[in-house]
Amino acid sequence: MRIDGLQYAKWSEKIFRQMREGGVDAVHVTIAYHETFREAVLNLERWNSWFEAFPDLIMKGLTADDVERARSTGRTAIFFGFQNPSPIGDDIGLVEIFHALGVRFMQLSYNNQSLLAAGCYEEEDGGITRMGRQVIREMNRVGLVVDMSHSADRSTIEAAEISERPITITHANPHEWAPALRNKKADVIRAVTDAGGMLGFSLYPHHLKDKSTCSIESFCEMIARTADTFGTERFGIGSDLCQDQPDSVVEWMRTGRWTKEMDYGEGSATSPGFPPMPDWFQDNRDFANIEKGLRSVGMDDSEISAIMGGNWYRFFAENFGPR
Amino acid sequence: MRIDGLQYAKWSEKIFRQMREGGVDAVHVTIAYHETFREAVLNLERWNSWFEAFPDLIMKGLTADDVERARSTGRTAIFFGFQNPSPIGDDIGLVEIFHALGVRFMQLSYNNQSLLAAGCYEEEDGGITRMGRQVIREMNRVGLVVDMSHSADRSTIEAAEISERPITITHANPHEWAPALRNKKADVIRAVTDAGGMLGFSLYPHHLKDKSTCSIESFCEMIARTADTFGTERFGIGSDLCQDQPDSVVEWMRTGRWTKEMDYGEGSATSPGFPPMPDWFQDNRDFANIEKGLRSVGMDDSEISAIMGGNWYRFFAENFGPR
Repeated sequence: MRIDGLQYAKWSEKIFRQMREGGVDAVHVTIAYHETFREAVLNLERWNSWFEAFPDLIMKGLTADDVERARSTGRTAIFFGFQNPSPIGDDIGLVEIFHALGVRFMQLSYNNQSLLAAGCYEEEDGGITRMGRQVIREMNRVGLVVDMSHSADRSTIEAAEISERPITITHANPHEWAPALRNKKADVIRAVTDAGGMLGFSLYPHHLKDKSTCSIESFCEMIARTADTFGTERFGIGSDLCQDQPDSVVEWMRTGRWTKEMDYGEGSATSPGFPPMPDWFQDNRDFANIEKGLRSVGMDDSEISAIMGGNWYRFFAENFGPR
Repeated sequence: MRIDGLQYAKWSEKIFRQMREGGVDAVHVTIAYHETFREAVLNLERWNSWFEAFPDLIMKGLTADDVERARSTGRTAIFFGFQNPSPIGDDIGLVEIFHALGVRFMQLSYNNQSLLAAGCYEEEDGGITRMGRQVIREMNRVGLVVDMSHSADRSTIEAAEISERPITITHANPHEWAPALRNKKADVIRAVTDAGGMLGFSLYPHHLKDKSTCSIESFCEMIARTADTFGTERFGIGSDLCQDQPDSVVEWMRTGRWTKEMDYGEGSATSPGFPPMPDWFQDNRDFANIEKGLRSVGMDDSEISAIMGGNWYRFFAENFGPR
């Protein structure tokens, strides 16, 4: 079983077919960054039109059973998530509404301070806000998973403590291996994994040691070492694949409508666009390379299968329904 | 089994308890008249809060199986509907979104011309519009039932023809018995029932012969005669009970935001508010009176049980899912 904990591609039939070629049974896809409620619903509508247009390739995923259903019918189950709580605004009632519409992950913040938590690029991190505590409780109630991939450290550790169900970092790597602001220090990973949560290893070059030239050996060695330290069952892949997106999209991700100035995020003025992916992970057909790489660094079949999808599957089964 | 094909009460624990006392297993409740998309979602949120507050009395209904589940756990299943397509505006994608949120009926118009069909108070009835044809097809696809209770005759007959699945008039009576503009002429009832659709008999006094003083004998005799003419299996109850609503709500129903003048609908300047219900049908505890009345006019047990809920149950089972 292969499950990817995060992608934000420019979706097309080509990519859906590559998912099938790559044997990807399920993907958590981002459907909102800075979108309003109405805009997020429009993005759901767009997915509905793809489900209608490509019923042999993809299906909407609501529960772990849908991963099995997709697998047995040769399709990929698509699970929705937000990288920012913008679509709920200040209305906690929208948590249950979006859960009913299929949203299964929501980041409490995206780089910046949100109504719920601090983002990883803020200088100050006041932790989880008053509304944040209420929203975490509501997400716990309905089965919408807290994702802290782009949140600040204290906020993340507090979210792991406050949440009565496991939380996630769907796409990031250990800061120790690649010291990006977006990567996670050991105490953050510890807080999430000790509480039963999961982290998905990212293949986004800004999160990799040596960025686009990162070797598969280094990436897989990092996975093996991290699994040894925190427990294999706490990890999966969250590729952060942004395939075929124009650079205007990374600009939208970084600046939304919150600033009139440029913000280069993990990029820079000289390299403002999407960085090239490593040659051993260009698209959904390359998951087999990671499996091979994990075998090379000494992981056994059951560990590899857990990392490549088994752990996400178990996590989905335990966390996508009401308590 | 008792199923009510339409209510729009001022919901409260009192009414939920009366539903239980009255043995009402399922109700189709109106959640929007003139609401925008966002306002309709807020009304869904309010229902979510009632489901959370009164889990022993009510539950959200999505399929006919939920009627059985409600029945076996001593609750009432609540099915959502719109009396106007206002919440979808000009966005056909919202049909599937609302279906995912639990909406199971939508009127194509409410008294006035809509983007989809003419209303029963318009002087001109151009039938189903271009968008109306598209929306009917989409409603057919996802399993959202067309309701023509407040639509004009030609529009209703065309909807029955265009729709590939049965349509409804959830709450109205034969025009021949009580010649209100909202009641339906024989050719309209024929078009709907011949296509496998259903009509729910209304207890709203403006739809009754002699209004609030209508006798239960007259009402039940009308049911028996109509069932004889068009087939017992095509009818149920759609009480249109608007219990505990202040008169400001009937004003909202009639004028929404589409006019700055008063419009008295089925009322009048001297009697602008909700009319008093007949003494034999005051609230949800009075369904047994109708059963008794139907027995008095000679209906047998199986016919009575079909009218009181069996027919709606069969209709729900056949029409609430994708084709």
